[in-house]
Amino acid sequence: MTALVAIATVFILLFYFYTVFTVGRSRAKYKIEAPAMTGHPEFERAVRVQVNTLEWLIIFLPAMWLFAAYVNPTIAALLGLLWIVGRYIYMRAYLKEPSTRSTGFGIQAFASAVALFGGLIGAVVALFTGGGGA
Amino acid sequence: MTALVAIATVFILLFYFYTVFTVGRSRAKYKIEAPAMTGHPEFERAVRVQVNTLEWLIIFLPAMWLFAAYVNPTIAALLGLLWIVGRYIYMRAYLKEPSTRSTGFGIQAFASAVALFGGLIGAVVALFTGGGGA
Amino acid sequence: MTALVAIATVFILLFYFYTVFTVGRSRAKYKIEAPAMTGHPEFERAVRVQVNTLEWLIIFLPAMWLFAAYVNPTIAALLGLLWIVGRYIYMRAYLKEPSTRSTGFGIQAFASAVALFGGLIGAVVALFTGGGGA
Repeated sequence: MTALVAIATVFILLFYFYTVFTVGRSRAKYKIEAPAMTGHPEFERAVRVQVNTLEWLIIFLPAMWLFAAYVNPTIAALLGLLWIVGRYIYMRAYLKEPSTRSTGFGIQAFASAVALFGGLIGAVVALFTGGGGA
Repeated sequence: MTALVAIATVFILLFYFYTVFTVGRSRAKYKIEAPAMTGHPEFERAVRVQVNTLEWLIIFLPAMWLFAAYVNPTIAALLGLLWIVGRYIYMRAYLKEPSTRSTGFGIQAFASAVALFGGLIGAVVALFTGGGGA
Repeated sequence: MTALVAIATVFILLFYFYTVFTVGRSRAKYKIEAPAMTGHPEFERAVRVQVNTLEWLIIFLPAMWLFAAYVNPTIAALLGLLWIVGRYIYMRAYLKEPSTRSTGFGIQAFASAVALFGGLIGAVVALFTGGGGA
């Protein structure tokens, strides 16, 4: 079921695009001309959400694919879903009040850690048994 | 023809490196010492071009590979070429005058959308037919 | 030995996470509230290290996998190790004194260039001979 991981990847990228889009909308709303990246707290929060999503997506996407290749693709896709849920909760919370961002952040960090360390263990097992792999 | 997608990937990464290099050159030209990220409009524009290229590369690279795996690798590589062309037009325009950046931006956004939604459709079809996939 | 490249990928992502973690720790130490990205030179250096690591990771990770697919996976994993070593030296140097960052930077740039151009040559050869590839 690698196709499920591919579908999860598209939704992760679409969610990320949504954070980029939110920055652009906020830039227009508060009339902040490019290349300025500051000027209104709400715009700056939208920027931080987008940047933080990118920073973690960089970790999560390869980790999810390693988990899919060396452990299980269906569980990998479910981790992808969990990651998006955590990221969405984080985004809503951060845009309202940055100090409330830890719940959603924790959910996506948990999904990332499971994917990363699961993928690592799976790859180490494959190294010694010759099994699995993309 | 997966090799064509690999070659397109290298050129996409080289183009991205070119935007990173442009920031460094601009930093030297205007004598802006690291870690400062502001100090001259031209430097700040170069930074924005580089960051925006990174933000979209994150979407485009996985999308192009999904399109290659689930739809067609040759068309995927051509989308990669189109993406670079759009990005180059965007870069030239932004560095001269940020407000003229929409043409190139639109071209690369079109290539990204085709890769992303084409890949999604291909993966959904593969999920129900058992065909395709990396 | 694709599993070795997978393991290298996890360690690259963990190193990157370490640069993200260093930013968070520095933010707490100097009491810089989100979404502020400035406020203390040490914090700003940690941010620059993290952003620069992300910028190059974006180039290195796909390049390492192309090198693994079209040239040799074991050498690809060793390039990954070299990249982490260069990045670590760069990080230590930058946090102490930004002007001393070039040694580590050069090491990781060398690993990146070998992976990228090696991968390109391998993919071009595969295109004309029909061999190799993921």
